[in-house]
Amino acid sequence: MRACAVIAEFNPFHNGHQYLLKTARKTSQADVMIVIMSGNFVQRGEPALINKWERAAVALQSGADLVVEMPTEYAVAAARDFAQAGVQIAQWLRADALAFGCETPGLDFQAQSRLLDRTFSEQDYNQSFASQLFAESSLSRSNDILGVNYAYWQLRLAPKLTLLPVERLQAGHLDQEIKGTIASATAIRQSIQRNDAQYQQAVPDRMKKVLERQKPVDWQAFWPFLEYRLKTTSAKELRQIRGINEGIENRILAQAAQSSSFMELMTNLKTKRYSYTSLQRKLTAILLNLRVLSPLQKTRLLAVNAQGQAYLREHDFREVLMTKVTKADFTASYQLTKRADELYQMVAPYEWGRTPILEKNVKEKTLTKKS
Amino acid sequence: MRACAVIAEFNPFHNGHQYLLKTARKTSQADVMIVIMSGNFVQRGEPALINKWERAAVALQSGADLVVEMPTEYAVAAARDFAQAGVQIAQWLRADALAFGCETPGLDFQAQSRLLDRTFSEQDYNQSFASQLFAESSLSRSNDILGVNYAYWQLRLAPKLTLLPVERLQAGHLDQEIKGTIASATAIRQSIQRNDAQYQQAVPDRMKKVLERQKPVDWQAFWPFLEYRLKTTSAKELRQIRGINEGIENRILAQAAQSSSFMELMTNLKTKRYSYTSLQRKLTAILLNLRVLSPLQKTRLLAVNAQGQAYLREHDFREVLMTKVTKADFTASYQLTKRADELYQMVAPYEWGRTPILEKNVKEKTLTKKS
Repeated sequence: MRACAVIAEFNPFHNGHQYLLKTARKTSQADVMIVIMSGNFVQRGEPALINKWERAAVALQSGADLVVEMPTEYAVAAARDFAQAGVQIAQWLRADALAFGCETPGLDFQAQSRLLDRTFSEQDYNQSFASQLFAESSLSRSNDILGVNYAYWQLRLAPKLTLLPVERLQAGHLDQEIKGTIASATAIRQSIQRNDAQYQQAVPDRMKKVLERQKPVDWQAFWPFLEYRLKTTSAKELRQIRGINEGIENRILAQAAQSSSFMELMTNLKTKRYSYTSLQRKLTAILLNLRVLSPLQKTRLLAVNAQGQAYLREHDFREVLMTKVTKADFTASYQLTKRADELYQMVAPYEWGRTPILEKNVKEKTLTKKS
Repeated sequence: MRACAVIAEFNPFHNGHQYLLKTARKTSQADVMIVIMSGNFVQRGEPALINKWERAAVALQSGADLVVEMPTEYAVAAARDFAQAGVQIAQWLRADALAFGCETPGLDFQAQSRLLDRTFSEQDYNQSFASQLFAESSLSRSNDILGVNYAYWQLRLAPKLTLLPVERLQAGHLDQEIKGTIASATAIRQSIQRNDAQYQQAVPDRMKKVLERQKPVDWQAFWPFLEYRLKTTSAKELRQIRGINEGIENRILAQAAQSSSFMELMTNLKTKRYSYTSLQRKLTAILLNLRVLSPLQKTRLLAVNAQGQAYLREHDFREVLMTKVTKADFTASYQLTKRADELYQMVAPYEWGRTPILEKNVKEKTLTKKS
């Protein structure tokens, strides 16, 4: 069976995502579409609007055959580490192609990725640096930049993986107004936050129903915990957190003492030096108490249909894929993802420790290689 | 002027405390009664029912002339460290006598204090150990044991300080039913928690009014923060906290995952090895992120009347007493007390950064030595 992977967040799942899955399947002639999805916290350094199980279920109903989770440590990292995890998991799961949305499909992503060789401390990769890095090139749009990062790791980790850029329809990633059935996730999230109905035309019915049923989660829900953490952590201790260095620890502590909400803290923190996203990522690292990135270990099955099941039975993925999470997994590779999930659970209860979502007729016992 | 010190928590201030202050003043023939009071967290490892300013104000109206604060780090420590801070502050403030309530006033506290020379790791001083230590002696009651600890430090830090044991009236420290106007603080707190009126006969009117006006604070109010902290801290990180060692970190993490309230956690944690109080102290250290005890630096003025003012003007206490807290103090000695206060503030708003309580006619400018 041919497999095509997509690295995604689906925050929330929208019509553009559905188009991407459909186009990728067609172009790659894949029998199985694998989605490598972020869990409850996403790359912008914020909680996902809706928990990962709901998003995985919608993905399964909307073109994915197999949804696995990118460990939270990597899901909330800057582009380079995020891309590394995505490409590594695609390679582990023997994907033939990696499809991704981009603004400039004609770009030579592999050639552009050589820019990334002008490397920098992994601790300090933030978006403003990325902007600087690419300032001399024609690269400026976020999905293109992400694509370049995929290409960087594809060359190193998965030489047989075919890169499949898919041009994004109409809306730019940052377009804010929703005019038709295609809109950026940013525009959709803003519509949801404004509590208007604009977003509804841009997401499939299944996602619409989830969003109507569940209160979307935002950073403010975690503010009491962040505030508590900052009030009880010294600058020296804060420097042990990933991405906290160069004096930002003092700025964060001083501004937190003046802020009475997450938005207020972000407004007080923002300077030219740090992008909004890079600041949010730092605050997420503090909230989750993330230290040095640990080596990537295993991915977790979130959802699967019969086609995905057939694929799982064709291969032996036991070394790289958890089809259920046992206590032994919790104590090692999955620890920080579990932490993020439990914390998400504290503000938005859901069945966090559940077993994967199986399409009707798919049995849990048949998720590993035929013996 | 002759000064007599009392080390106290006033949690809450009750008739027995009033008796102690009165008896101590009479016996010591003191012109000024100094109270060295715990702030917003107390030695049992729990938040004070009522914030420190309210308690200091009641003390000032009930027999104290000068109320200063024991830094929180020491106020929530086990008997030995708690006593060290108390005696050191009494010595700094040139007290002639140190009065304390006890069960056995005839005891030779100094002689008994030699038992403490059979010393132990400062990190691991907990009440069950104290019980073992004193098991061979006739010492078993908590105020007697505290008195022995005062005597230990008096011999080392303040040889000129006279120890003044005052026999507690009627009620034992742990008596639970309130029969007359004298009851233990434990019995009073239980009556308050049961929300009955029994306690009212055992506290002065001023304290009664405060308790009627303010919702008493309990550990459960801090449970979301403790739960969050435990969910985002590894066992290895937990071992950096004061008093967390010998595997208790694993037990705490495992039991916290099973507990949905502070009481439930305490019930799940309790074993013969650790007293209830020593466990609460450990959880307080985790909540406040207390590491190794830092050297004692300065005390803070909480409340003063004209008599106390005259005493302050007689001496030069600038090296040891903050009459107001400046930014410079916050960055050094007062840091952990400030942290505890801000945290207390998060669950029970009050004016935490206020200036000391001054009796009518006492002016802030006249709180230091006449020049």
